[in-house]
Amino acid sequence: MRPLSPTPNRIYQMQFPPLESSNVSSSQNASPSTHRNLEQVQESMHSAISMNKREILDAALNNFSEGYFVLPIESRRKLLVTLAREYDLSRAHVRELMKQYLAIELPRGDEAVDSGHEEEGSFSAFYRIERNLRHSLKPMYEVLFERLNTHPGGLRFLTIMRADILSFLEEDNIAALRALDSYLKEKLITWLSPANLHLHHITWDDPASLLEKIVTYEAVHPISNLLDLKRRLGVGRRCFGYLHPAIPGEPLIFIEVALMMNVAQTVQEVLWDDPPIPECEATCALFYSISSTQPGLSGINLGKFLIKRVIDVVRKDMPSISTFATLSPIPGYMQWLLSKLASAERSGSTFRENLLKPEEESALIDAAGELATGKNGMEVMWNLLASANHEWTNSAKLMSALSTPLMRLCARYLLQEKKRGKALDPVANFHLQNGAMVGRLNWMADRSEKGLRQSAGIMVNYIYTVEKIEENAQSYFSRGQTQAFPDVRSYLEPQEDHEETKD
Amino acid sequence: MRPLSPTPNRIYQMQFPPLESSNVSSSQNASPSTHRNLEQVQESMHSAISMNKREILDAALNNFSEGYFVLPIESRRKLLVTLAREYDLSRAHVRELMKQYLAIELPRGDEAVDSGHEEEGSFSAFYRIERNLRHSLKPMYEVLFERLNTHPGGLRFLTIMRADILSFLEEDNIAALRALDSYLKEKLITWLSPANLHLHHITWDDPASLLEKIVTYEAVHPISNLLDLKRRLGVGRRCFGYLHPAIPGEPLIFIEVALMMNVAQTVQEVLWDDPPIPECEATCALFYSISSTQPGLSGINLGKFLIKRVIDVVRKDMPSISTFATLSPIPGYMQWLLSKLASAERSGSTFRENLLKPEEESALIDAAGELATGKNGMEVMWNLLASANHEWTNSAKLMSALSTPLMRLCARYLLQEKKRGKALDPVANFHLQNGAMVGRLNWMADRSEKGLRQSAGIMVNYIYTVEKIEENAQSYFSRGQTQAFPDVRSYLEPQEDHEETKD
Repeated sequence: MRPLSPTPNRIYQMQFPPLESSNVSSSQNASPSTHRNLEQVQESMHSAISMNKREILDAALNNFSEGYFVLPIESRRKLLVTLAREYDLSRAHVRELMKQYLAIELPRGDEAVDSGHEEEGSFSAFYRIERNLRHSLKPMYEVLFERLNTHPGGLRFLTIMRADILSFLEEDNIAALRALDSYLKEKLITWLSPANLHLHHITWDDPASLLEKIVTYEAVHPISNLLDLKRRLGVGRRCFGYLHPAIPGEPLIFIEVALMMNVAQTVQEVLWDDPPIPECEATCALFYSISSTQPGLSGINLGKFLIKRVIDVVRKDMPSISTFATLSPIPGYMQWLLSKLASAERSGSTFRENLLKPEEESALIDAAGELATGKNGMEVMWNLLASANHEWTNSAKLMSALSTPLMRLCARYLLQEKKRGKALDPVANFHLQNGAMVGRLNWMADRSEKGLRQSAGIMVNYIYTVEKIEENAQSYFSRGQTQAFPDVRSYLEPQEDHEETKD
Repeated sequence: MRPLSPTPNRIYQMQFPPLESSNVSSSQNASPSTHRNLEQVQESMHSAISMNKREILDAALNNFSEGYFVLPIESRRKLLVTLAREYDLSRAHVRELMKQYLAIELPRGDEAVDSGHEEEGSFSAFYRIERNLRHSLKPMYEVLFERLNTHPGGLRFLTIMRADILSFLEEDNIAALRALDSYLKEKLITWLSPANLHLHHITWDDPASLLEKIVTYEAVHPISNLLDLKRRLGVGRRCFGYLHPAIPGEPLIFIEVALMMNVAQTVQEVLWDDPPIPECEATCALFYSISSTQPGLSGINLGKFLIKRVIDVVRKDMPSISTFATLSPIPGYMQWLLSKLASAERSGSTFRENLLKPEEESALIDAAGELATGKNGMEVMWNLLASANHEWTNSAKLMSALSTPLMRLCARYLLQEKKRGKALDPVANFHLQNGAMVGRLNWMADRSEKGLRQSAGIMVNYIYTVEKIEENAQSYFSRGQTQAFPDVRSYLEPQEDHEETKD
């Protein structure tokens, strides 16, 4: 599965045509005409914020969004910084209201008043200023967001605008732009609440324009040709997408499901083994890919609701299916392990934590033969894993010696390594916060270059146990507890159970 | 037309059954069991606010709404006051943030900074505290509103809750409850934005359960029987309603339209004259009734968007129709005129404004005969109009003498009498803010008791000129200008043109 944490954002300048049909081509050079363009677009942005008449407003919103799309990247950046800085709130006004507020005495602490009426007067003043403050704390650019949201094509434009903002923030962390992004993100979360999203079962009967998007956006297991796509929508397979009425024909996120007899252990079984079993024999729904299509919705967890809805739909449709599981990558494992091995080497021997058990260390040195001369176990392990071509996978002896510590440390990584109370691994964090449990680790489940590089080929099944989803999510959220099946927990020794990485 | 300003709200205790089917019956006595009920409902309200697990939350929301419906009025009042006071925001926290905010220096006034980076730090602090303040200024009860909004039946429950709040506020203006109402109203305005409403052409083919609601809620021209309803949905007639997906089968507001050759001058022509003209001959769409069905949506202008959408639909459907007009009551006219006549009498003769022109006064005294003995024109007018049985309508002479000043003063009332820049008359204000013009005054257009009491039988046509709707609305909104047709304006003498009632 693809991590849902922010992926590198690109500027989708050419990929997304202007909202209204027009064949303007993007000018990439900061020529005088570009400069005039920026001014014009800025003017239409101003109109879109300050106009009140409906007809003119619609025209201004169109002008603005069309104009935005033809601007070169640098002009977009300037425009958005202008929006963030010059259409902010009035700090002077906010301060004025605060001073008024602080001048009123707080009756009887902050508690509710039982006696009723004598303090009504001062409470009225609180309520009035609080209300005014709520309004004055809204930046002026909220008007633009709200107007675009109800304007045809506007919601889509806003997600593209946010993708741009995020990419600019990667280059330069401008506080005003960061605040603009955070405000826009909160708005998008409201507008894209599950109540406003429509679950669509994607089939071979869907329009080609929609299916094309699935091919384009599938990021976990790329779709190579039409036959490949057809199979993923055919017997024993399901594909569901979340659509918003304002962005028709383009799922914001979609999930691919395989109906199976058992929880799959390798990518091979899901993608290539043929034929699929008859659907009536399936007892397991395996989520093998989830892809979000909009970089501008980064950080907005639509997948959580999508998974829950899909579980509901599949259960209703096929009561024989009782297991809901994923086959997921562990994208951060190798990075964590290599840096752990390196830092253990750097620290003095007194404080050094030996990541390997004595028997693992001797087995490894034994298997490595002359490669291990003069090195300890962790050095050998680092050398093997860090080598570019993953040569260790060509030696049965090395694979065998590595598998024990790699599986054990992987369990530790997934179950115990946390940052701010959340799992260090982004995909683990995604599923755990959705209420899944760590079900099983699968050795050599993804032998692709990417799989070996990210996680030494290990994949994990997260299990969604319907009755426990909310409970798990809650205990993960409030106490940072990671739920796991005994099988996975058995990799860990009891004393390691409460270790946690502080940040 | 029915005024859309707040109407007296009743508690819809029995009229609306609990959300989920259950046969609990309402206990009206404050018995010990009632007391236990209140505590229980309060507990489920608390759970609905503080719970996080989905299943439990849904149960808590159901418990709360079901419990609310069986509570007697007094307990509902207590519960809502508790919600308003004890689930408010934390003022101590708000004050703490404000002090932090005021302690940061405002860089270079309140203006945007061009130079870029040197002040990023202090701006970051502003953005951070502003964001925190926005959150801390949200009362705790917002959670309940948000959760109910996405819960099945919850939006409807919230409108009923607001109807209760409004009726409690009429009895006792508790500041906390007022603040609760204002917050809920803003939420409802967001949720009921036109983008979320569906325009439905109501016909005889609609479910009886929906048609029954039209009969129940039609408040302007009551529907007496099924035949009457059928006629209003038949040839030459249209009925449109606004529905929200979360409140199916029940329009929030509906409008009745008659297709006519000319703008009707009397209720008679619209409601009872038969048969209607063939639709292909119609050139005018007359809005003769607009009724909102939810007392809990009082103050939320859904009618404005409904009228605009209906105009669009009718124009598309029937290009031969070029005039869009209303036949509307003038509910505040008599009240204003009588108090004006009375206060003119009370003030000394020096400052007394004679509402009557000399020729009107003499004609009136002449027509009144011995009734006028020893009285001036305004006293005679007051006596005639204030009499309970509207006896003046039985005398052709009196009617003729009264008609001139009544029509002239009616034009003045509609065009010039303002309060805070808005038309004094609520129906006038409604249509003017929607962008209509005052088109024509119609003498003896509504001879019903109500029509005579409210406006001496006068009705008015407001005209919606498609190209000018936005412009009119804008100039009314920003400069308080009332647009009128020359016909109406001719009642007024030039020097009266800029008079305005200050408040």
